[in-house]
Amino acid sequence: MTVIRRIGPLFTDLYELTMAASYFDNQIFSDATFSVFVRETSRRNYLVAAGLEDVLRELEGFRFSEEELDYLRRTGLFSEAFIAYLRDLRFTGTIYALPEGTLFFPEEPILEVTAPMIESQIIETFILNTIGFQTNVASKAARCVYAADGRPLVDFSLRRTQGQDAGLKVARGTFLVGFSGTSNVLAGKQFGLPVSGTMAHSYISAFDREIEAFSAFAETFPESSVFLIDTYDTLEGARNAATVALKMKAKGYNLLGVRLDSGDMVALSKSVRTILDQAGLLDVKIFASSGFDEFEIMDIIAQDAKIDAFGVGTKVGVSADVPYLDIVYKLVRFNRRNIRKLSAGKVTLAGEKQIFRRMDGKGMLKEDIIGLRDDVIADAEPLLKKVMENGCCVGPHPALPDIQARFKTNFACLPEAFKSILNRRHFSVKLSERLRDVQQNTDRAR
Amino acid sequence: MTVIRRIGPLFTDLYELTMAASYFDNQIFSDATFSVFVRETSRRNYLVAAGLEDVLRELEGFRFSEEELDYLRRTGLFSEAFIAYLRDLRFTGTIYALPEGTLFFPEEPILEVTAPMIESQIIETFILNTIGFQTNVASKAARCVYAADGRPLVDFSLRRTQGQDAGLKVARGTFLVGFSGTSNVLAGKQFGLPVSGTMAHSYISAFDREIEAFSAFAETFPESSVFLIDTYDTLEGARNAATVALKMKAKGYNLLGVRLDSGDMVALSKSVRTILDQAGLLDVKIFASSGFDEFEIMDIIAQDAKIDAFGVGTKVGVSADVPYLDIVYKLVRFNRRNIRKLSAGKVTLAGEKQIFRRMDGKGMLKEDIIGLRDDVIADAEPLLKKVMENGCCVGPHPALPDIQARFKTNFACLPEAFKSILNRRHFSVKLSERLRDVQQNTDRAR
Repeated sequence: MTVIRRIGPLFTDLYELTMAASYFDNQIFSDATFSVFVRETSRRNYLVAAGLEDVLRELEGFRFSEEELDYLRRTGLFSEAFIAYLRDLRFTGTIYALPEGTLFFPEEPILEVTAPMIESQIIETFILNTIGFQTNVASKAARCVYAADGRPLVDFSLRRTQGQDAGLKVARGTFLVGFSGTSNVLAGKQFGLPVSGTMAHSYISAFDREIEAFSAFAETFPESSVFLIDTYDTLEGARNAATVALKMKAKGYNLLGVRLDSGDMVALSKSVRTILDQAGLLDVKIFASSGFDEFEIMDIIAQDAKIDAFGVGTKVGVSADVPYLDIVYKLVRFNRRNIRKLSAGKVTLAGEKQIFRRMDGKGMLKEDIIGLRDDVIADAEPLLKKVMENGCCVGPHPALPDIQARFKTNFACLPEAFKSILNRRHFSVKLSERLRDVQQNTDRAR
Repeated sequence: MTVIRRIGPLFTDLYELTMAASYFDNQIFSDATFSVFVRETSRRNYLVAAGLEDVLRELEGFRFSEEELDYLRRTGLFSEAFIAYLRDLRFTGTIYALPEGTLFFPEEPILEVTAPMIESQIIETFILNTIGFQTNVASKAARCVYAADGRPLVDFSLRRTQGQDAGLKVARGTFLVGFSGTSNVLAGKQFGLPVSGTMAHSYISAFDREIEAFSAFAETFPESSVFLIDTYDTLEGARNAATVALKMKAKGYNLLGVRLDSGDMVALSKSVRTILDQAGLLDVKIFASSGFDEFEIMDIIAQDAKIDAFGVGTKVGVSADVPYLDIVYKLVRFNRRNIRKLSAGKVTLAGEKQIFRRMDGKGMLKEDIIGLRDDVIADAEPLLKKVMENGCCVGPHPALPDIQARFKTNFACLPEAFKSILNRRHFSVKLSERLRDVQQNTDRAR
């Protein structure tokens, strides 16, 4: 179902190519392992892995086109021998990664690539871009789903996402943690997501009176109308909606709902609910859409707002409070030697690793242990799966509903304290004894 | 030079299509004018228009493909008659807009579309997405250029932008306000931008000793090397760089520079400058790249850091302090009647408008007057240009260097007080008498 356009290997920082050229000149082709992880986050208790499918699809088709090689030639930076080498370059490596929808925590390796140095280096920028944003959005969206406490959420962010494919990634990333759908028609088509949306204020303004606009819309969409009621006066809008809804009822149709898009959502929703109920329209839902994210949703639900579903837009679409993750791609092993970086405040865990997850007696998450990939840790589940071997995907990509189900299962096992929107709480992530030994030996070896 | 892929009309919120279907059923085809503007911004004294070329290219080719129509049919929402109507739909409207690179201020109309209602409505989401993000990034980047006070800046953001085309838009948007280039190779190819970049920490780690890595790199790139010197110890790195630079010099080559990527940039840059100078390497530049945006750049320059150029990444690439603009697309005229929206706290200026810019005696910006499009305002220049007529572009798209030049000219006329990074200052934006009359008459008519 998913249609991902080819990005191509020029989606990279120039330094990946200059390093590659120098590795080529120096005949440095040994295997290197790079590890992707998120450094400490100050505002999120947990993160949700997302974006892997895009990474794997692109790497399977990794190759330079003649047009791309020609551009590189024209930069004047690269030798003909290196250009010829790039022409034949394919991604032949192995990748271990967290399946999409898996909960994880800072410092944990979420993806590790092992491949000849040039291959593993050259894909850095692409992998970080692809995994980082989707993971960030899915993580923010998961908090919204929790805050909404069972009420459906729909992605309304497309007009203010940071560009076009951000819009697609937000639709996908929010869906995989439990959003019900999106307003984004292209995402609906590409990912098979439910799409929703009805009318804007301009529609109301195009008619002489609000009630005429509602009636006209109901003629076209008798079974799927949601009336936007705040263009002039929200309560008057609710009464107009009720009038039209009753006429629809007489013809055998039900108004799905009304939408609030401005003003005091708590007070207005209660008044609108009363107006609808008094008209006997108990089934007409109240939707709300005005700058919502997890904080606003939590806040108005705590005040008993009568809102049945939320349209969630800009703040989630750009992850406004945390607009980027400090996600990095670090060399941890090269030429059979573990590598550890120790720049000021930036430590990397050397070695090929695995995350081992341990549950408590009630089936709830207890602790994670980062170990070496071949560690054996009792009563703990290894989370990173081999998803690519010799450049080929291991098995099919999971369907989005399956990823959504995985997230749901994961999230159900997260103790309540970590789900808090406001309280910061660090999940216990330890290092295995053998991994600690590797770090010490690596330090001594420098 | 620019290659923009077709986005297609499904890049839209569903409600644009449901409204269109209802307009179609009700035979509402009169001309509508929508106005794009940014509501108050709390942290920016000025904004820079960007993204227009993408809008115009897409609208010239606006049409639904059979595959897209087929998807819409499968949603079950639309009649066959409406699908047939969409098949023939083209964008036939007229657009007035600020040329890219023009300075503007909140509440000012930066783009106005006039077209039959369905055409002008259906493109809302696409226009907001395309103009909003590029304008936001260009505006943030302009502040960086000002803070850098003549030092070159290079876009390093690609790994952490919100998706792929965000990365391209950041490279373009930063260049058009004066960045020197980008690390983004694809942007280099698509937009003809200078690309730069040399090595990462992993390159250094792949060699037994740092100095070997520098030497090996200099063999491959004798004329364009910048050594990253903070992998182990920055000052030791500077000494190693100096040693290799002197060997290069003996062969007739000059090391371009060294790069700092962590630690106390002020102190380190001064010590590194001393090391390089004492080795007689007065021409070797010091580049820095570690979480910079206008605030950090201003800060370390104020402390006399010896930094010659900056790599600017994540914080600018996502516009971290202002990750979205409150940009809107509002109906201001329909069927020869001006329209004004008055929802709580959200006022829209009715009518087809123009921005008139007035300079003072010294050629500096004095005030803007928002007027009706056919206003005649003495000693003021109308800023919105007719860029599309009957669906066709009026003239060629300006080249990026020309946009950069326009921005430079604009910025030179902005009084110093408004350029401040920290101080908030509102530029004077007035309404013309005739525009005020229209607002009052529109209110009275409701």
